[in-house]
Amino acid sequence: MAVSRLNIAVLGASGYIGADLVRLAIGHPFVRIVALAGDSRAGQAMAESFPHLGFYDLPPIMRAEEVDWAGIDAAFGCLPHGASENVLSALPGNVRIIDHSADFRFRDPAIYAETYQRAHSRPDLLADAVYGLSEWARPALRKSPRIIACPGCYPTATLLALLPGMIAGLILPEDLIIDAKSGVSGAGRWVKEANLFAEIGESAHAYGVGTHRHAPEIEQELALATGSPVRINFTPHLLPMSRGEIVTCHVRLAPGVGADDLRAAIGDRYRDEPFVHLAPPGLSPATRHVRGSNHCLINVFPDRIAGRAIVIAVIDNLVKGSAGQAIQNLNLAMGWEETSGLGQVPLFP
Amino acid sequence: MAVSRLNIAVLGASGYIGADLVRLAIGHPFVRIVALAGDSRAGQAMAESFPHLGFYDLPPIMRAEEVDWAGIDAAFGCLPHGASENVLSALPGNVRIIDHSADFRFRDPAIYAETYQRAHSRPDLLADAVYGLSEWARPALRKSPRIIACPGCYPTATLLALLPGMIAGLILPEDLIIDAKSGVSGAGRWVKEANLFAEIGESAHAYGVGTHRHAPEIEQELALATGSPVRINFTPHLLPMSRGEIVTCHVRLAPGVGADDLRAAIGDRYRDEPFVHLAPPGLSPATRHVRGSNHCLINVFPDRIAGRAIVIAVIDNLVKGSAGQAIQNLNLAMGWEETSGLGQVPLFP
Amino acid sequence: MAVSRLNIAVLGASGYIGADLVRLAIGHPFVRIVALAGDSRAGQAMAESFPHLGFYDLPPIMRAEEVDWAGIDAAFGCLPHGASENVLSALPGNVRIIDHSADFRFRDPAIYAETYQRAHSRPDLLADAVYGLSEWARPALRKSPRIIACPGCYPTATLLALLPGMIAGLILPEDLIIDAKSGVSGAGRWVKEANLFAEIGESAHAYGVGTHRHAPEIEQELALATGSPVRINFTPHLLPMSRGEIVTCHVRLAPGVGADDLRAAIGDRYRDEPFVHLAPPGLSPATRHVRGSNHCLINVFPDRIAGRAIVIAVIDNLVKGSAGQAIQNLNLAMGWEETSGLGQVPLFP
Amino acid sequence: MAVSRLNIAVLGASGYIGADLVRLAIGHPFVRIVALAGDSRAGQAMAESFPHLGFYDLPPIMRAEEVDWAGIDAAFGCLPHGASENVLSALPGNVRIIDHSADFRFRDPAIYAETYQRAHSRPDLLADAVYGLSEWARPALRKSPRIIACPGCYPTATLLALLPGMIAGLILPEDLIIDAKSGVSGAGRWVKEANLFAEIGESAHAYGVGTHRHAPEIEQELALATGSPVRINFTPHLLPMSRGEIVTCHVRLAPGVGADDLRAAIGDRYRDEPFVHLAPPGLSPATRHVRGSNHCLINVFPDRIAGRAIVIAVIDNLVKGSAGQAIQNLNLAMGWEETSGLGQVPLFP
Repeated sequence: MAVSRLNIAVLGASGYIGADLVRLAIGHPFVRIVALAGDSRAGQAMAESFPHLGFYDLPPIMRAEEVDWAGIDAAFGCLPHGASENVLSALPGNVRIIDHSADFRFRDPAIYAETYQRAHSRPDLLADAVYGLSEWARPALRKSPRIIACPGCYPTATLLALLPGMIAGLILPEDLIIDAKSGVSGAGRWVKEANLFAEIGESAHAYGVGTHRHAPEIEQELALATGSPVRINFTPHLLPMSRGEIVTCHVRLAPGVGADDLRAAIGDRYRDEPFVHLAPPGLSPATRHVRGSNHCLINVFPDRIAGRAIVIAVIDNLVKGSAGQAIQNLNLAMGWEETSGLGQVPLFP
Repeated sequence: MAVSRLNIAVLGASGYIGADLVRLAIGHPFVRIVALAGDSRAGQAMAESFPHLGFYDLPPIMRAEEVDWAGIDAAFGCLPHGASENVLSALPGNVRIIDHSADFRFRDPAIYAETYQRAHSRPDLLADAVYGLSEWARPALRKSPRIIACPGCYPTATLLALLPGMIAGLILPEDLIIDAKSGVSGAGRWVKEANLFAEIGESAHAYGVGTHRHAPEIEQELALATGSPVRINFTPHLLPMSRGEIVTCHVRLAPGVGADDLRAAIGDRYRDEPFVHLAPPGLSPATRHVRGSNHCLINVFPDRIAGRAIVIAVIDNLVKGSAGQAIQNLNLAMGWEETSGLGQVPLFP
Repeated sequence: MAVSRLNIAVLGASGYIGADLVRLAIGHPFVRIVALAGDSRAGQAMAESFPHLGFYDLPPIMRAEEVDWAGIDAAFGCLPHGASENVLSALPGNVRIIDHSADFRFRDPAIYAETYQRAHSRPDLLADAVYGLSEWARPALRKSPRIIACPGCYPTATLLALLPGMIAGLILPEDLIIDAKSGVSGAGRWVKEANLFAEIGESAHAYGVGTHRHAPEIEQELALATGSPVRINFTPHLLPMSRGEIVTCHVRLAPGVGADDLRAAIGDRYRDEPFVHLAPPGLSPATRHVRGSNHCLINVFPDRIAGRAIVIAVIDNLVKGSAGQAIQNLNLAMGWEETSGLGQVPLFP
Repeated sequence: MAVSRLNIAVLGASGYIGADLVRLAIGHPFVRIVALAGDSRAGQAMAESFPHLGFYDLPPIMRAEEVDWAGIDAAFGCLPHGASENVLSALPGNVRIIDHSADFRFRDPAIYAETYQRAHSRPDLLADAVYGLSEWARPALRKSPRIIACPGCYPTATLLALLPGMIAGLILPEDLIIDAKSGVSGAGRWVKEANLFAEIGESAHAYGVGTHRHAPEIEQELALATGSPVRINFTPHLLPMSRGEIVTCHVRLAPGVGADDLRAAIGDRYRDEPFVHLAPPGLSPATRHVRGSNHCLINVFPDRIAGRAIVIAVIDNLVKGSAGQAIQNLNLAMGWEETSGLGQVPLFP
């Protein structure tokens, strides 16, 4: 391995996001995995928890407090909210933090507290954290911030779909209906009855209707981008599949604006993006189009109701929605080629 | 078998709706299957097309024109639109028709022609046909009409969810967003690449966005029920499952109306219904809750956006959305117990 | 309800077998569910644990020791081994017991002890228990035994496939290779990581290779039927589906015997059976052919290796493999029509 | 791109193997895709057939006879048998051929003719073709043969599992029972009713029992490796998943040989292999362990029947079973690093 590799640790390596980070990091030309932490699996080889990673030379899983941070340059946090804040805020100051939890996503500790039902113990850190929606945060990310808060999977897809039209004023900031659907891995490797195969297979249902925690996160970012408060409908559904996420955004257009105008604006914005793409006219984005990759595919359709449009975006929740975007953010922060380690072509079928 | 059984024929028996009709009819106490027609499978035993029906004594599949209608009391049409009209309109006048196609659903032949891109050849029959949304058409059905046009699967779920609130004026007839999701059997046994397992598995996508043919049908019925024209957003998605359908209706409430008011109205309307049910507070209806049965489960949730609510309904698209409702309609038309032959308890897991 | 209904209790009602028993019992003409027990869900309505049963009037779930046995005629045991023995052996003597655990399946307590790693506390009861493979135990079942031990799901399919040929000496009792495959519900509603949707989906693997507890059970029954000890290979696999079980038995034929001879023998044996069927020549039994029903479908194929054949059987593990066979056994023990309450037509797709 | 890239064409690019070849070739450091042929899709962009490849710059699909072979170094054949022979045998002599069909796999044209029911028109080419089971054909592959016949997916997994034990005489060449299970993509993108989602979902069945065409291929290779004719039982099953293949080989051991001996022999043989691995003791190989990658995972288990063992191998049928092994073979033939372009880490979940 090249001398110049960055030494990284993955905290929460025994979950699905942690595993996908390891999958991507294994093929990354500029990083080296030197520590894996996961309390419930401490003492095991990574292959015991994830046999699909057994073909690679990886450090054993240890407890987070056992990690020797000397020589570690960056830590990827894949821990639940609360736990993430506690563990990450105690890291040495020279360790860059790329976090997947909600703990560093909110500007306003009060909204965090209300949404996650706990007070933030280190609100001082919030101001420095960069909300890492890669395509929209490049200037801040290139300044190499110490803490990068990766967006939630739903906010990633939703914001990529809506921001061009919202910022340009093509979409009105009212009656925003975001009907989302996700595979089960979005719930993590949480061992509970509702996530059993026999419960999920051959079935679909909505969850967190009107109460899902990603709604305030989306609202924050839309408000920051447009300068005005926004209130959204966010209705996620659980589908009988493991990976993949689709958000169907039902939007009201500004007077005189047509779906084609919105489509053109999205196309213009993402024309040169390596990972975010406008689909050809009429192609309905499917989660299989991006499975296992860091791509996001978007399209716009006219509504039967005059003055409305439908914007659809698909991502792999564990890649562009989690581990892939985290790597992309590291690439930006380090000044590397943005696509480093993210060349996975979608896996289909 | 009892002397009093009604002799029925199933036209289009080699498709999924046809097969489910046979499944239900086998257990029906008052009917006897005397003819099965399906041009592409003519000459085969039903068990060759559907081995799961091989345990029962059934007539062979023949061509529709080979059916001897003497002694046949009722025909269930499970043919594509167009074909349905041609075949059914040629039947002897004493044969009751219960049709699953769109051919007899529309009051206005012009809307039919625009939606299905063909002129109706027997518009004279439209006036007599009853739109068989069982719970809302009982008076007409009990008059024993000759032609019963069974609603489409999406219209069934959507109308059951919306009619109580629309008729009571609790839901405003504007910005109706119906985000629907269905298993693959809704597309029938259509042999095309897009329906292959490897294409559908582990993926989800929207289809017919803004153009699906069930939208005008829903609009017709909402307009008839409320007395005013309605224009809806109807956005269906295809899910990696075989059966089941969920419609998520994002609605705007009349001033002063809350989600609880809407929920109460739905509960009142369906309190005594054998097949349509309001779920307990907070329970999110899942398609597995009704799989294989004629039940429909509905619930209402408040939206984050003030003045809006979310109404969710689930059905089995092949039962309450097709074959089951057809049987229910026959029961009503014959004056039998409405639940005859429809005692299937949902199959879970 | 008719005066003559039998009052039944279901112990372990919060598991999948318990739920399927309730599904079947709801439609049974001669039974009435009067008690549901399940310690982990005690105090809940059955609909909280299984919303698909929420459309029916059912007693609440209580602790097993809270059940008032006065007036209860029969108890269906759906508890784990060990627990089953403890609970059932304490029931009043007039309560008929139909058990799904392994606790009453073994003639020899030593084999039970070795297989389940615990000593049986009531070996005295073993002699009276009838091993309830319905089609092969009718004489004993019709004597109305107090304890009926329902076979395991794999033994049910395997024994139905092999017994005709074994007893007739067409299959040699050596090198019996039973390669089995099952949906996940066979593992029960056990909340563990290995049963999560994201672990099971799009994957298959063998488990319990060489060690599965159903092997000694199959061996016992084959030995009892043939009068000679038998040692089998039994290799089960877990498939990404919820219901259904297929056993592929690779057998050596007696000298001069062909696959057709074996096929004829199976056909002869089951010709008049309502639930066990020989498939037409060449039809490969699929689990979808019997889903949700009490049917078993069997076929025989010649092997490329001379002197061998392949016998394949499919069942729904929760019906013919569990709850359905239990009902069938009750029907036999009560002298009712054997098919009472078991008229469910397979659900396909 | 580097000057030294090899120009490749993919014939049959509109099928699943073709698409996966493109997926792997996109990331290969030494090849360049210059032509894609597929008669049924000629004139389309690759992205129309496979939207998941729409993010890459690829040549359009054309008819095979339209390909300009000047400057093309190698052709990957992904055509059906018969078609493959016809198209490939007409290519310019300087074009290296790596074929996925059965047309160049057999040494004996008579066995080919019997198995595939057609006479081979170019038996002269068979002698030169190398059967490309990479790990076992390296010497021949490194001689850079003009025609490489890639093994079928089932033979790949089966031979990798059995060859070490067969060659060492640990496994007896009799009563070899190979019970195999595959996802649906193994059937290709064949648009037929049996491959529809609603037919495959939630079901499993055997197919080609005793008649599957991969049996003679496996027998040929086992006979060549051991010097004696072998006759096998090969019983494949279709599972409700898209990718992945598992072969469960029930073998008889030579006198005095134990399962551990066989396990050790397999471990020794593959110790330094980059893609073929012995699993840790007790780990049951699952198809998810290798999904999307070129890895093969093998393990051995003792049987309950003395003197027998069970060898299980898993591969991704489209990668190690098809496109991946083809790339591996090209790497060997070109003298490149054998793992070039094959660094895909398994995708789980």
